[in-house]
Amino acid sequence: MSHSVFTHPWLSGLFGDPGMAEVLSPERQMSHMLGFEAAWSRACGKAGLFDATTAEEAAKAIESAEIDLADIAAGMAQDGVPIPRLVKQLKAIAPADAVHKGATSQDVVDTALVLTLREASFLIAGRLMELETYLKALEEQFGDAPLMGRTRMQAATEMTVRDRLLTWRLPLADHLKTLDQKRADVEKVQIGGASGDRKALGDKAGAVVAEVAKALDLAPTDKAWHTMRHGIAGYASFLSLITGSLGKMGQDIVLMAQQGIEEVAISGAGGSSAMPHKQNPVSAELLVTLARYNATQVSAMHHALVHEQERSGAAWSLEWMVLPQMLMATGRSLAMAIELVQNIERLGRAQ
Amino acid sequence: MSHSVFTHPWLSGLFGDPGMAEVLSPERQMSHMLGFEAAWSRACGKAGLFDATTAEEAAKAIESAEIDLADIAAGMAQDGVPIPRLVKQLKAIAPADAVHKGATSQDVVDTALVLTLREASFLIAGRLMELETYLKALEEQFGDAPLMGRTRMQAATEMTVRDRLLTWRLPLADHLKTLDQKRADVEKVQIGGASGDRKALGDKAGAVVAEVAKALDLAPTDKAWHTMRHGIAGYASFLSLITGSLGKMGQDIVLMAQQGIEEVAISGAGGSSAMPHKQNPVSAELLVTLARYNATQVSAMHHALVHEQERSGAAWSLEWMVLPQMLMATGRSLAMAIELVQNIERLGRAQ
Amino acid sequence: MSHSVFTHPWLSGLFGDPGMAEVLSPERQMSHMLGFEAAWSRACGKAGLFDATTAEEAAKAIESAEIDLADIAAGMAQDGVPIPRLVKQLKAIAPADAVHKGATSQDVVDTALVLTLREASFLIAGRLMELETYLKALEEQFGDAPLMGRTRMQAATEMTVRDRLLTWRLPLADHLKTLDQKRADVEKVQIGGASGDRKALGDKAGAVVAEVAKALDLAPTDKAWHTMRHGIAGYASFLSLITGSLGKMGQDIVLMAQQGIEEVAISGAGGSSAMPHKQNPVSAELLVTLARYNATQVSAMHHALVHEQERSGAAWSLEWMVLPQMLMATGRSLAMAIELVQNIERLGRAQ
Amino acid sequence: MSHSVFTHPWLSGLFGDPGMAEVLSPERQMSHMLGFEAAWSRACGKAGLFDATTAEEAAKAIESAEIDLADIAAGMAQDGVPIPRLVKQLKAIAPADAVHKGATSQDVVDTALVLTLREASFLIAGRLMELETYLKALEEQFGDAPLMGRTRMQAATEMTVRDRLLTWRLPLADHLKTLDQKRADVEKVQIGGASGDRKALGDKAGAVVAEVAKALDLAPTDKAWHTMRHGIAGYASFLSLITGSLGKMGQDIVLMAQQGIEEVAISGAGGSSAMPHKQNPVSAELLVTLARYNATQVSAMHHALVHEQERSGAAWSLEWMVLPQMLMATGRSLAMAIELVQNIERLGRAQ
Repeated sequence: MSHSVFTHPWLSGLFGDPGMAEVLSPERQMSHMLGFEAAWSRACGKAGLFDATTAEEAAKAIESAEIDLADIAAGMAQDGVPIPRLVKQLKAIAPADAVHKGATSQDVVDTALVLTLREASFLIAGRLMELETYLKALEEQFGDAPLMGRTRMQAATEMTVRDRLLTWRLPLADHLKTLDQKRADVEKVQIGGASGDRKALGDKAGAVVAEVAKALDLAPTDKAWHTMRHGIAGYASFLSLITGSLGKMGQDIVLMAQQGIEEVAISGAGGSSAMPHKQNPVSAELLVTLARYNATQVSAMHHALVHEQERSGAAWSLEWMVLPQMLMATGRSLAMAIELVQNIERLGRAQ
Repeated sequence: MSHSVFTHPWLSGLFGDPGMAEVLSPERQMSHMLGFEAAWSRACGKAGLFDATTAEEAAKAIESAEIDLADIAAGMAQDGVPIPRLVKQLKAIAPADAVHKGATSQDVVDTALVLTLREASFLIAGRLMELETYLKALEEQFGDAPLMGRTRMQAATEMTVRDRLLTWRLPLADHLKTLDQKRADVEKVQIGGASGDRKALGDKAGAVVAEVAKALDLAPTDKAWHTMRHGIAGYASFLSLITGSLGKMGQDIVLMAQQGIEEVAISGAGGSSAMPHKQNPVSAELLVTLARYNATQVSAMHHALVHEQERSGAAWSLEWMVLPQMLMATGRSLAMAIELVQNIERLGRAQ
Repeated sequence: MSHSVFTHPWLSGLFGDPGMAEVLSPERQMSHMLGFEAAWSRACGKAGLFDATTAEEAAKAIESAEIDLADIAAGMAQDGVPIPRLVKQLKAIAPADAVHKGATSQDVVDTALVLTLREASFLIAGRLMELETYLKALEEQFGDAPLMGRTRMQAATEMTVRDRLLTWRLPLADHLKTLDQKRADVEKVQIGGASGDRKALGDKAGAVVAEVAKALDLAPTDKAWHTMRHGIAGYASFLSLITGSLGKMGQDIVLMAQQGIEEVAISGAGGSSAMPHKQNPVSAELLVTLARYNATQVSAMHHALVHEQERSGAAWSLEWMVLPQMLMATGRSLAMAIELVQNIERLGRAQ
Repeated sequence: MSHSVFTHPWLSGLFGDPGMAEVLSPERQMSHMLGFEAAWSRACGKAGLFDATTAEEAAKAIESAEIDLADIAAGMAQDGVPIPRLVKQLKAIAPADAVHKGATSQDVVDTALVLTLREASFLIAGRLMELETYLKALEEQFGDAPLMGRTRMQAATEMTVRDRLLTWRLPLADHLKTLDQKRADVEKVQIGGASGDRKALGDKAGAVVAEVAKALDLAPTDKAWHTMRHGIAGYASFLSLITGSLGKMGQDIVLMAQQGIEEVAISGAGGSSAMPHKQNPVSAELLVTLARYNATQVSAMHHALVHEQERSGAAWSLEWMVLPQMLMATGRSLAMAIELVQNIERLGRAQ
């Protein structure tokens, strides 16, 4: 059983996000890796690097391969990447001459990564829009109600609920716009071969890259991007901007829910083992927690930019430790915000 | 299936640590929480707050309780802590009057945490000593061999392998000494009740605290420490000092293993999917990765010091997200270092 | 004298950047703040909120004001912002009725901030282009030379110097493109008044905002952005992407400069007090240091997104501590990279 | 003029700490470096490595040397450290044979660092004690007053002001105790010579180390600690524990000062440019800011543990960027807390 809050048997009740967990599931990661390998075989077949018929046969075998994960795990400890063992397994069930040749570990793992990011982006986009809608509904319902403006945690001048709500909602529109750019930054096929120079592909490199990109619906690239990871780190930074915006909303709601302030009423707030009558704004607090979590993790993703030479085992692995957790935190934050906003029963100055 | 590197079906082949995973397992956490509740019932029985016979009956029922984890998970989303549902389950199988009364969520969760930390400390201590031993053995074998001293990544003056090895080994002795202090800083019972003032215990507070502490072999406390978390953050900082020291060793070994330098020979180094002949110093790189991981996470543990009022849901939950992962990284780093050091076949200037 | 590396009497010899220091200088910050106040007076005059003649008189007085900085400093300790004292000084030399009325501290400080960021962006853009040019020149000179590709710090397959150089240069082109977007994200006038709702401006709000924006050549805004700081945090993240890319280049060069590898020759490398013959790749190392510095600082900028209510003193001040330093690090990293690249005398396999 | 908040012409009014600034002043750093060089000459004279009379003459010249800082700065850009130029200047005014020989840059810079840390520790200890005293006084005055206990930002059960005050004060006592250990961890002479092996000192190494240590009142060491930086990183972590504890107090006070809560009255709280009547808890907010600042910076100090080989220019320089700022933040946090606590006029439930 897991000790990660996202999958822990009971902590996941608070932190878990089944939708994002599905996007990040090992099964789906493996499916993306096999998708790359199949596309690779076909592209090399089409380019004449592999025999075309054998290549198609290999691709089909790869697509329906049943992978022995324990064997891959055993290889990880030695190779630091899952691909050598995966390729060995594939060669055992498919024509070995038409499998993986000319590609390397980072081609498979990083292309699979951006396929994961694409699915995560869909999920994020959907939730951003949904949250925007619920916040607009709150605005229609409570927007004109008076609310004390507060600066430096002190009452300032009276404004309206709308003024506060806009600071929660407007960032979401910005994030939605930015997401398009961030998607373009990362949804690019990674192909480099051994040292990243595509040498093994000779003058067929452009054709193979174009074909793999087309098959996977990714942008083609002139150069392997494996060692230039600002797209990935930029995407991670964007995730933290989202959770930061939601953290601001969560912090506001926690403050509004205080006794003596009571500017919000939330249904279904949490209980206490010592004081069953007490209503805790658990979901709003969680938005703050997840914001601070991502604000910390983003640092590791920037450290991983110092990616020496043609492949840094150390920097690359650091991303594996951090990026999936940032995605989980972002997914959960959005889902929790949507739930919280729906549970708001009143906003504005206490009656 | 998990997307955390520590439990991921194949990435765990590189990052997993079965020993530390066992220490952190939800089963064991639950067992620590039940251990607290049982000790609580007995202590309150002895102090006369509960009927003594009923208390013993409750304690026995608690100790053999079979907990419905799905129910606890369902409660997490609402309560933000597992305890309200846990207590409800316990009251259903034990005399309700002698269960949990006078305690609160943080008493159970934080006391269980330090019981986990104690077990982690044992494991860490054992591995520090083991690693020290292997490094001493390397010193005996290769200590006198010449080695180029390198400063700012440039050859400086020749020294011996011993000079380098000492910078890997001496920190371990320091860490072992510090561990005793860190253990004393955290192995303290947390008891406060609703607002942390032990009011529900009246003049029996001292007796109950002493009794629970004795039962769990923890230090008693004059005051609930739940909101004063420098002990916990200090412990986390210490974990990162360990992985940092091992990261230095890993970085050195990676540099020594370069072609053209070849100051180390390692057996069992990793392979490449594109170049089967290549030997990668995967385990040494992992030490660098884990050092940078903990160096990032430690920041979140320090942010969690800003723990407002009598309980901060936001700050406390942040620790749950980070501390177990730091322990896993530390455990894995030590285990990997031990394995790596044993695999060293030669140290010193290339022949 | 300063203990910051950027202005320290001797450490600034390594870390200092006179160009960026000028952009960030307190004199220029004050000038931006006065620029806002003058534009404010004029805009309110034009909108009929102030008497137009008096407003122009006030604007002129503000523009030529000599500010008593010690007085502002004294006010900081009490007010937490420089504006109350600044306004007091301005009212003493200009018609008080036409000074600052309807604006508030964050309007002045944050609008001044984006004026600073605009100047920093010019400087960054120029240096990115310059560095790109020098890297292209290196490519023309040494691009075809053979270079060992290295993955996981091990020799992989031979490639060319061009393959390595492209991974240094291509990110710069991406950063230049991104800079345009980042500029658009931040170069917006901040106007909100007391609680951020522009209430004091009544139906003239749109006109005043448009006029101030026009005067300062910033984009107008429909809503105060002071509490929605994802633009600022996104800009900071972008700075760290730049230093991260340069850190990768620096790390590569440090590794190439090792004895036994010698894939680069640099003129003017550093000396040692113990070994005067030794040539240290100081400037390449500095690129790594600055990358790790910004990778750490970026975390604080993301924490500052949790900006409660209409103004968070705590979160806002955190930015003041971090963002100028990130700009200095970025400026220095670019300047140092330009110098380093010019000092490269040879690239490629040691002869 | 400086753009660092600690020395900025007006921001320093809020962030500045003249006491800690003095400890960290370049003049004093230089004095520590000269102190090392003088002790070195004398110790080598006593050990017979230098002619004793010449050594004493050199030591005296060093102690009264007037250093050309611009020249040192010019050297930094090339050497990455101030020592080659410093030594050159010293050799011009003292017998060159009895200056620095056998030492190296890190010996001077790191020994000077721990002399700085010792002075910082004195200042920190004094302020911790002072703050403790003022908090005890508050307890005597207001300890018995009723105060609502608050968990998860919600009213829980009523307790007393004492219960809250203890959570502010008890950590200080712990920090004072820990400081002794932290001082012992760092107050050690750093002596290694070129590659850190003290080879140039031959069999006189022990004698020289003992003598230098005695002269500077530091602990002697068996081995250069320059590359084993867990003592330094542990000290930095400790600084962040202090600011974290004070951040908790600051956050509490900010929350207590809210309208509708009013559990604290503070004299001299800050003003607003838009609302002159408003009282802002600026100093309490600053404690939160400084806590989050150090919680971020501590990460860089842990990254700097990955200190490759016998000297890492990259990792070492990172400390120079961060540690002085952490000391400034810690000094300011303590000073501000002392001032804030003295300004508290009432604690406990609003009347």
